[in-house]
Amino acid sequence: MRLKLPITCFILEIILIILFGVLVEYDKETDARKWHHSNHSEYDNDFYYRYPSFQDVHVMIFIGFGFLMTFLQRYGFSSVGFNFLIAALALQWATLMQGFFHGMHGGKIHVGVESMINADFCTGSVLISFGAVLGKTSPVQLLVMAVFEVTLFAVNEFILLSLLGTKDAGGSMTIHTFGAYFGLMVARVLYRPNLHKSKHKNSSVYHSDMFAMIGTLYLWMFWPSFNSAITAHGDDQHRTALNTYYSLAACTLSTYAMSALTAHDGKLDMVHIQNAALAGGVAAGTAGEMMLTPFGSMIVGFLAGIISVLGYKYLSPILESKLKIQDTCGVHNLHGMPGVMGAIVGAVTASLATKEIYGDGLEDVFPMVAVDKKSASYQGGIQAISLAVTLGMALGGGLLVGFIMKLPIYGAPSDASCFEDSIYWEPLHFYSHLCFSK
Amino acid sequence: MRLKLPITCFILEIILIILFGVLVEYDKETDARKWHHSNHSEYDNDFYYRYPSFQDVHVMIFIGFGFLMTFLQRYGFSSVGFNFLIAALALQWATLMQGFFHGMHGGKIHVGVESMINADFCTGSVLISFGAVLGKTSPVQLLVMAVFEVTLFAVNEFILLSLLGTKDAGGSMTIHTFGAYFGLMVARVLYRPNLHKSKHKNSSVYHSDMFAMIGTLYLWMFWPSFNSAITAHGDDQHRTALNTYYSLAACTLSTYAMSALTAHDGKLDMVHIQNAALAGGVAAGTAGEMMLTPFGSMIVGFLAGIISVLGYKYLSPILESKLKIQDTCGVHNLHGMPGVMGAIVGAVTASLATKEIYGDGLEDVFPMVAVDKKSASYQGGIQAISLAVTLGMALGGGLLVGFIMKLPIYGAPSDASCFEDSIYWEPLHFYSHLCFSK
Amino acid sequence: MRLKLPITCFILEIILIILFGVLVEYDKETDARKWHHSNHSEYDNDFYYRYPSFQDVHVMIFIGFGFLMTFLQRYGFSSVGFNFLIAALALQWATLMQGFFHGMHGGKIHVGVESMINADFCTGSVLISFGAVLGKTSPVQLLVMAVFEVTLFAVNEFILLSLLGTKDAGGSMTIHTFGAYFGLMVARVLYRPNLHKSKHKNSSVYHSDMFAMIGTLYLWMFWPSFNSAITAHGDDQHRTALNTYYSLAACTLSTYAMSALTAHDGKLDMVHIQNAALAGGVAAGTAGEMMLTPFGSMIVGFLAGIISVLGYKYLSPILESKLKIQDTCGVHNLHGMPGVMGAIVGAVTASLATKEIYGDGLEDVFPMVAVDKKSASYQGGIQAISLAVTLGMALGGGLLVGFIMKLPIYGAPSDASCFEDSIYWEPLHFYSHLCFSK
Repeated sequence: MRLKLPITCFILEIILIILFGVLVEYDKETDARKWHHSNHSEYDNDFYYRYPSFQDVHVMIFIGFGFLMTFLQRYGFSSVGFNFLIAALALQWATLMQGFFHGMHGGKIHVGVESMINADFCTGSVLISFGAVLGKTSPVQLLVMAVFEVTLFAVNEFILLSLLGTKDAGGSMTIHTFGAYFGLMVARVLYRPNLHKSKHKNSSVYHSDMFAMIGTLYLWMFWPSFNSAITAHGDDQHRTALNTYYSLAACTLSTYAMSALTAHDGKLDMVHIQNAALAGGVAAGTAGEMMLTPFGSMIVGFLAGIISVLGYKYLSPILESKLKIQDTCGVHNLHGMPGVMGAIVGAVTASLATKEIYGDGLEDVFPMVAVDKKSASYQGGIQAISLAVTLGMALGGGLLVGFIMKLPIYGAPSDASCFEDSIYWEPLHFYSHLCFSK
Repeated sequence: MRLKLPITCFILEIILIILFGVLVEYDKETDARKWHHSNHSEYDNDFYYRYPSFQDVHVMIFIGFGFLMTFLQRYGFSSVGFNFLIAALALQWATLMQGFFHGMHGGKIHVGVESMINADFCTGSVLISFGAVLGKTSPVQLLVMAVFEVTLFAVNEFILLSLLGTKDAGGSMTIHTFGAYFGLMVARVLYRPNLHKSKHKNSSVYHSDMFAMIGTLYLWMFWPSFNSAITAHGDDQHRTALNTYYSLAACTLSTYAMSALTAHDGKLDMVHIQNAALAGGVAAGTAGEMMLTPFGSMIVGFLAGIISVLGYKYLSPILESKLKIQDTCGVHNLHGMPGVMGAIVGAVTASLATKEIYGDGLEDVFPMVAVDKKSASYQGGIQAISLAVTLGMALGGGLLVGFIMKLPIYGAPSDASCFEDSIYWEPLHFYSHLCFSK
Repeated sequence: MRLKLPITCFILEIILIILFGVLVEYDKETDARKWHHSNHSEYDNDFYYRYPSFQDVHVMIFIGFGFLMTFLQRYGFSSVGFNFLIAALALQWATLMQGFFHGMHGGKIHVGVESMINADFCTGSVLISFGAVLGKTSPVQLLVMAVFEVTLFAVNEFILLSLLGTKDAGGSMTIHTFGAYFGLMVARVLYRPNLHKSKHKNSSVYHSDMFAMIGTLYLWMFWPSFNSAITAHGDDQHRTALNTYYSLAACTLSTYAMSALTAHDGKLDMVHIQNAALAGGVAAGTAGEMMLTPFGSMIVGFLAGIISVLGYKYLSPILESKLKIQDTCGVHNLHGMPGVMGAIVGAVTASLATKEIYGDGLEDVFPMVAVDKKSASYQGGIQAISLAVTLGMALGGGLLVGFIMKLPIYGAPSDASCFEDSIYWEPLHFYSHLCFSK
């Protein structure tokens, strides 16, 4: 621990800096010469179309994911602190990997607000996987995971978006399904049969749940920005935000209902509220930009909340006992199943697309249908295939990376030290005698 | 409790989904076909004018109101959790009610960013009322209140904005006055003579006040966005944000001054800081879009802060002892009196409007004066009448809905169980032995 | 205390209101008549270019700075509460002072979104100084400091931006260097040899560090908006945000590395994570709008993180023991040294500017070079001189204002009462018996 983390961080960052020096340059909207070379209104700069959405996404990544994971009673520093560290790494590495696969211009990777959003998206996928292994991995393990996962994410994204022509603006497949199943497979490989040794720390206390609600609400509020951040300008961004807004609202009602219904005494469970209420955003990630209608969005969100609570209640214990997957945050329920559901909803919605419904907007949403004259059902089929590809990449990648992470060289915590900040952070002080002296 | 909450949530959400299916469709800015049918620049889409403001308003509704109410020591989960639940319901129902009264096009309710902002506004009104009854109502009671209050809000808004031609962009009347007096009347009807049984829980502790400050600051920071979110494009949005910014700054100074001045030992009171410092935003809700000038805005904010602290200090105890209104959050001081003050400021400012001051901008701010050739004092009179209408609707509506909420079928908490999370939430754990083992 | 704070607040606010009444009017983008007088597209209103950035900056000022300082175990109310108070004062006074020096039009100060951003920037500088004296000053002392510091800030800003033609969009010099060295000099003058009496309170506990992380993350996430908020429209805002984003990401990695490396047992220190990870934003404050490239930005951030952690670890103890500067928050490490570094990076980057690199964009970034035909090295020299001017103004101003603050009339806390909320706030209740009764 003494040297592993510093050396890993320094080496990774120096490599990143060198690669940025060699490969990265401003795109034509951030470069002073190129932007002023041609005649634009300043408003045409994509900054004004996307920067507010970028900032919302950025808050989701650092506050949203970071605080959502602070529910553990003695792992708050690590939850928000490691989230911060691996996100800062992942967004740099993602810029290179995504640029390499679909942002090269004359041998250079071009960067601007869209690459920033895409890098944050890819980072989100890594943080989902982090949720599955939360409390059981050292920061060096997490950095290693981030490096490999970002790479595989970019490959999967390239296959879907560039090769197949899949539509997945909010990332039901590329971000949520991929991140969840990748993380679950890593958790499987890193299975700890004696995790009961730290079981008493693997739970929340009152104030840690309050902090977690900050994460939940920021994710919930800004999800419309997440799903719409890189859709086409105009009606597309507008419609995606609207659909996601309704999906989330409906999901919240069904989450509360199911949480009370599945409890033995009708009480609400903070785990469900913190997580399942977000499933509506995940499930609208693919079809959100399509003509899903508010009606359709609400049905999707409503079902996503139900599925997610049922997953927390009944499926997670089975995953642990039968499949040996210890999914700390329940990412299977928040990102896995709702992500798959979102992919299916997207495939169905795509296959129902017609020129009558979309008008000239068809070109923005389904260029393959509008320009390449493929049929809508072809698009739907592509969407379905993309889900299968994503699941395969995630499970295979997670398996591989799980074994890499299992190498006994990264200072993984002992079973008794899981879910415990004090092994990574300078002496912790809980409520001191001062607090009780009044 | 076991079944009441789930059944209520499911029934309400299913009704909402059906009504959305029948009644709601995309407006021309969110519909792919309609948007692309005519020739726009993408920038003309209202999304780019209003979405950043919408997101700020959204944060105020879920984080701002939610965390402002977490000051109670044992009611944090319910404060933020029920706020989340009733807001998610109210925004859907508000879309329908507001659409029904002033958003119908050929039998359909059109939705887009403006309807989203308006729905959030209406939700804000419900959350204000929630503040008055905080800790003393079950979630089912709150859902019932939300359904009725949203309906009456929409009727009142329709009378003011559509029938009378009132100006109230930031909702001093429609949102704050209505929400506050509605909630106060509900609190009156639900008066609990034996509330002293849970008095020891009706107070804050150190960390619950820290959480509440998160709510306060988000409300304070984003209030300029709230007041300007649906004003006319251009100078109107710009001016409204500016006026509100100065009103709030001045209000903060007078709040701190009054808090120290009214304390017996010159100490500051967190209740005042958390609440009264926001009164400047409420009081600028009507006149904010007018040519109030920074000077005028600061006077308004300055006075609002003073009135609000005096209310907390001297009026709230009287309301409870004489009028039997137990106003948990003091919404009368934060939303009630400042809302009335804002309405009066708006009426006066409107009656002073001239073509010399507003130029061609008069049409945006006072179309009734500019286009319909009514006099400014007519507009001022309308504004004053609107305050009376709003007060009448709020008091009458609150009385009616209070009695509906009093029916003994919603699982209201006992007097001893008020302000207590543990009756609604899975077993709570406060600081465990772990915290003290170091 | 009984009357000092109320009287100070009232007098200051009344003076402000009167001066606003005499001096301030809407600019042509917020005034209904002036805006509608000429023919614009509504989009040309600067509101749409800058308001989202303004709101991000606003969050940094009130939540970012406010919560960053809540790390102290018994000073959370004062940290966030006094931050709120002095920020609300400073932004009003800054509007006047900045307007007086560089915003007068025909005897009137014009206000709009740009003046709001500038006022928030100036406020940020005051809050940096607040960090140096945190816990050791009464609110009246802080208000006095704010009044004088804002004035001197405006003078320094006027010398740099208006007289010399310095570029400093994100304020490495005007905001960070000025605020830090001003605050350090104030702290020197207010040196308390017996501060050890309250040493046990000058530290964090677990949950206070969690609250502080909220401040840290908001500062980190929104720093791209901070640096880009008042740069020229188009590529300039876009590029500045991008550069800052990469600088911060690289800084985070080097901060974690250095924090673990400098600890005796390889553990991470929350002080470093909360503060040093932000140094990359400070250090990109001047050069961020220039063609620094992502590569250059990352090097800058990387070094800033290293310098900042080293400062916390080795320099702060020396500052206290040798120079008698008790820098509560370590602003020298977060704002002082990274600010100076940012100024130097800016000078070097400016001196390397060529028409080949900037094209026609040179006019936006370096009008003195593009229009006045000065050489790039002249611009670089001006930048270097500006750093010296800023340091002189800050140190001299801090010395002067420190002595004013030392006058024994403001109710400064005793040595034993430092870092203690209970002398300013109504009775505090920590965890009550209720919490332990379950």
